[in-house]
Parts: sequence; structure tokens; C-alpha cells
Amino acid sequence: MSSTTEYAISLASVLAAAEQINGLAHRTPVLTCHALDKIATGDNWPSKRLFFKCENFQKVGAFKYRGALNAVKNFLLDETEKVTDLKDTTFVTHSSGNHAQALSLAAKDANCKAIIVMPENSPSVKQSAVRGYGADIILCEPTNEARSRTANDVVKATGAHFVHPSNDSDVMSGQGTIALELLDQAKQEYGVELDAIVVPIGGAGLCSGIAMAAKSLQPSIKIFAVEPDGAADAYNSFQKRELIGHTSPVKTVADGLRTVLGSNNWPIVRDFVDEIVLVSDDEIIMAMKLIWERMKLVVEPSGAVATAAVLMHKLPPDIINVGIVLSGGNVDLEKLPWLTNKLA
Amino acid sequence: MSSTTEYAISLASVLAAAEQINGLAHRTPVLTCHALDKIATGDNWPSKRLFFKCENFQKVGAFKYRGALNAVKNFLLDETEKVTDLKDTTFVTHSSGNHAQALSLAAKDANCKAIIVMPENSPSVKQSAVRGYGADIILCEPTNEARSRTANDVVKATGAHFVHPSNDSDVMSGQGTIALELLDQAKQEYGVELDAIVVPIGGAGLCSGIAMAAKSLQPSIKIFAVEPDGAADAYNSFQKRELIGHTSPVKTVADGLRTVLGSNNWPIVRDFVDEIVLVSDDEIIMAMKLIWERMKLVVEPSGAVATAAVLMHKLPPDIINVGIVLSGGNVDLEKLPWLTNKLA
Repeated sequence: MSSTTEYAISLASVLAAAEQINGLAHRTPVLTCHALDKIATGDNWPSKRLFFKCENFQKVGAFKYRGALNAVKNFLLDETEKVTDLKDTTFVTHSSGNHAQALSLAAKDANCKAIIVMPENSPSVKQSAVRGYGADIILCEPTNEARSRTANDVVKATGAHFVHPSNDSDVMSGQGTIALELLDQAKQEYGVELDAIVVPIGGAGLCSGIAMAAKSLQPSIKIFAVEPDGAADAYNSFQKRELIGHTSPVKTVADGLRTVLGSNNWPIVRDFVDEIVLVSDDEIIMAMKLIWERMKLVVEPSGAVATAAVLMHKLPPDIINVGIVLSGGNVDLEKLPWLTNKLA
Repeated sequence: MSSTTEYAISLASVLAAAEQINGLAHRTPVLTCHALDKIATGDNWPSKRLFFKCENFQKVGAFKYRGALNAVKNFLLDETEKVTDLKDTTFVTHSSGNHAQALSLAAKDANCKAIIVMPENSPSVKQSAVRGYGADIILCEPTNEARSRTANDVVKATGAHFVHPSNDSDVMSGQGTIALELLDQAKQEYGVELDAIVVPIGGAGLCSGIAMAAKSLQPSIKIFAVEPDGAADAYNSFQKRELIGHTSPVKTVADGLRTVLGSNNWPIVRDFVDEIVLVSDDEIIMAMKLIWERMKLVVEPSGAVATAAVLMHKLPPDIINVGIVLSGGNVDLEKLPWLTNKLA
């Protein structure tokens, strides 16, 4: 850990975020499942125990509400004296879907407007949800470059406040509140101190928030970030100890994890994450289906990647009590990956 | 309520069942969902509040484990002195699936054997699960008559102990424990006294157990039983105040509710249920999909019928705080009704 690095967030900013979102964001339940414990354990000993943090139950169906709400509330807190009419305050972002819904609802809850730049191949269920929260949508090409450019254009044209889906420090701190809850719930409800937390990594707002909060509270805990092998920029950066973008075309069923690691996230990932683990699309779909079948929970592909790594025995054998973040549950129920893959 | 009727179960037998299954069956969570509250409320006032008892999280994925476990434990309690080797004790039942899994696991947990008579059109996921619990399966024609006959044959040939999926008093008492928990959880966790409990009705083990327990504890509570209109024997019996079987061929997507009301269940349904409400297959599928989309919960068609009645405004407007039983979540994920219905 570099002692001279300044990070975009801290335990203090995560604790402040917890105050900001308290009573508005759900304190989601932590569930367990013996059938998945058995699969994760395999022939090893002792038995692993998995503790699933159900952010698919979060408002808008994903953890993203935490960060978006914290960003909106902090902006309004700073701007209250300047803003004369909240209805004139507009927030803008680009997002493959869940952050879009999250910012739309957070803005609506604060009597503000939202404009969402979405890639044109976003699942229809996510586009409908954004419109349902009263936000305007601007579609763009499904590339990271097109997203940023279009969002910048909106900021220039309207003076809207941009909230990046993962590289915004308020967003990162908001996502970190998951770690505060998960560590506390494991202890209070199950009498367990977690050996590790396993999280999906895409832009890394979730991962860096959780890593900062969890390592600050419990330095011995291991943080495993799990990335689809078809969008492995975080893995490649971690290996080279240097932030690099995607080096090959992005291709993964986990649509929430197609983005690139940001400049604010990278130093935290580099210094606080213990290992980045890759999973294939087949592994993601297998894990997703098992969660549906055995836990009776609807999770989206991106929400199943952490579970995929654990079920495929990609964690060291001495990790017994495992916190797993089920990050979201927004799936197009007309297009389930185990059905569409067959047809393809 | 007829004061001279003797019922197969009582509040005392339900309380005894709660003792028997305590620590083995899950005390399933009670969840809420603002989006579904809104749909259920519509243009009415005040807003309805729905409290979902998540028996899809129960062991084997359905409430049936409660009753089966109570039946197995009570049988072994009575027979312990006679039974020299538990491995020689065999339980047998006929079931469309969930009771089959439940009895298989309950027997296995008690070191006993189980033989399950299943209709040959049972979902494959249910057949696999039964085999996974170590039970033997005998397939039969998908009629209520064939099921009973085949199970009788097994009893005669093997001396196995028959546990009826709904008409067995221990099974009924076991299912009634859901009401004890639901009333308590609504009060303790949400500070609410329920105005009504809405339950699916098929064979009516669940419905009669819940009606007996809830009305005994809180006589003012209303019990609404919801039945698919393509399997309306309970509805017809209730209208005529006389137990009659199916009067037309059974046809419903809710495979768990195709059975007939039993002789032990009928007097309790007649005297303790306030109304039987019918729902169509389209309404069931709509409710099922909404539960998946909005609550991120996997429920099976039979598990969604109570919700369907509430969302379609089939309850009286003065019912505000509504307990709803999500009875199970065992779905063949390869054959989702909103996809297969389209193809048909």
C-alpha cells in the first residue's frame, strides 16, 4: 500500500454517505444458501459459508441507487444557496442501465430533472424503467467514447451536473456503504467475521468503495474483484500495475461490466484489492441460473459474476466465510441468456 | 361457523407443529414492494400495504416442507418403539412436485426412505430434485385417480406409510405454521396488524392450516383463498356449501393447484375462509412476471395466484394490510410461461 497516495474517497466519506442515504436506500438483506455453500466447498474442508448481500433488492434493482443518491444529495447540499428552483437542476450521466435508473430516481426524489445517455443496445427493460422515473433518454453508439462525448455535449448545452457512473467520488463512497452493512450483518445476524468480500468489477465504483471501507474497518479482510474475461481491463491493469483501457473488443454477457476502470478507482483497486479473478460468460450464466434455481433470486449476469468465481473454486482454499455482492437484478425476462445462447 | 363440527386440526396442533419443525424448516422472511403496493392500490385510498411471506425461500423451494416434516416427525414419534431400523421405514405420497420434494427431504433427514408417485407431465426440474433427495419415483398418468390408485398399490406392496399432500392432518397443521410466523412478523417487523391473508387453494392443506391458525389467533382477520378458474373445485364447493370435485377438465398453468379439495380440508375451508376468488391463467402469468421483475423473486405460477388476485383488485377495498403467501418457487427455467405461451 503506497503511504503517499491520496485517494478519492476514505472511510470517513463512506460513513458520511451512509448518513446521507440512510432511510432512503434499502438496507438490503444478507441471505445464505446451503446448496451453493456445498458447490463452493467441493471436496475441500472446512465447508465454506457464503453470505449474499442482496443488492438486487435495492431500489431500482441494483446497488447503483446508493451512489447516485449520495451524489445528488451532496450536490444539492453544496448548491442549495445558489439553486433557486430545484426543478431547474438537471443531472446527466451515461450508463448501460442501472446507474441510469438510479440517477433518474434519485433526481426525481429530489424534485430535479435527469437526462440519461444510454447505449442504443441497452436492454429494453432498462430503457423503460428510466422513462418510468421521468428522465429523458438520449441514445448513442455502444462505445465508451460515444457515451462520454454525448454526455459532454449535454453538459455544454444545458449546464447540467454530470454524475459519472463509477469514477465520481460521491458515487464511489455511496457504493462503499454496502461493505459497512455486509460486515455488520454477517456479525450481528450470523455471528461471523468475513474472511473475504467478492465483488464484480467494471468501472470499479462498487469495488473501490467496498475495498476502501472494508479494508479500513478490518485490514485483514481479503477483497477479490471478479471481471468477465471478455472485458478484462481491470485484470490487465492490475497485472501491469498501470491503468490501461480495453486492449481488445469488449464481449461479455455481463452488460453492466463493459465499462473501463476510472482514474479515481484505479489507485484504490491497485492498493486495496488482493486479487482480480476472471470468469467466462459460460461461468457467469451457470452461476446466474444456479442463483435463480437454488436461491429463488432474480439476478442479472453482472450480478452473478462474483458468485461464478466462488462456485468455480477460484478463491484460495483458506477463505471460508465469504461475503458475495449480488449487485443487481434487472434482466429482460424475454431474453434469458441460457435460452438465447441456445438459439444462437 | 358450525359449533358442532369437529375439525381435523386446531390451533393446538398447529402450535405443536411449530415446535416439531422449529430449527429445521426456515422461518422465511416477509418482504414488501412499493411498486406492487401501488398497483394493488390503484385509484383507491388509503394505500394498500402488501406483506409477502416468502415460502419460495423455504427448504425444497416451497411451503410443502413444513407439512411433510411435521408428518414424518409425528409418525416416527408414535412409531419409535416399533421401528427397529429407521432405514426400513418408507414414506410414500403422490404429488405434482413440491410435496414430493418435501417428503423426500423430510424422509432423508430422518434416515428413512421415500417413494414418490408423480404424474408423468411433472416439470423435469421437480423430478430431478426428488431424485436428488434420494427418493424413488414411480410415474403415473396425470389424473387424480391414477395418482391415488398408484400410491395405494405401493402402500399395499411395501407397507409404506402414506402421507397425503394436503388431506393429512399433520400436513395441514405444518402448513398452518406459516400463519403463526406471518402474523408475528407483520407485527414485530412492520408494526402492522394484518386485515387479511391471501393464500392459493388447491388441495387446501395450506389454506385450511392457515385459516385455522389465523382465525383462532385473530378472529377478525379475513381469509381469501385464490383458485385458478381452470381448476375451480374449491370455488364451486364453496358456492354450493357442499364438497364437489372438478366438474370440468382441469386446465391451468398453476400445476400445483390442479388437485382436489380433500375431506379434512373442506369443513375448515367452508367455515373459516371468507371468500374464494378466481383468477385466470393470464392474470397468474402477469402477476408471476411482475413479482420476478419488481421483487426480483423467482416464484412459480401456483406461487403467484394470491398476488394475482390482489393486483387485479379482487379484494374488498377496506382490506388495507394484506398478507400474501408466495407459496413456492420451483420453475423450469427453460420453459417460462410468458415465453412458451407466445410460441404456442
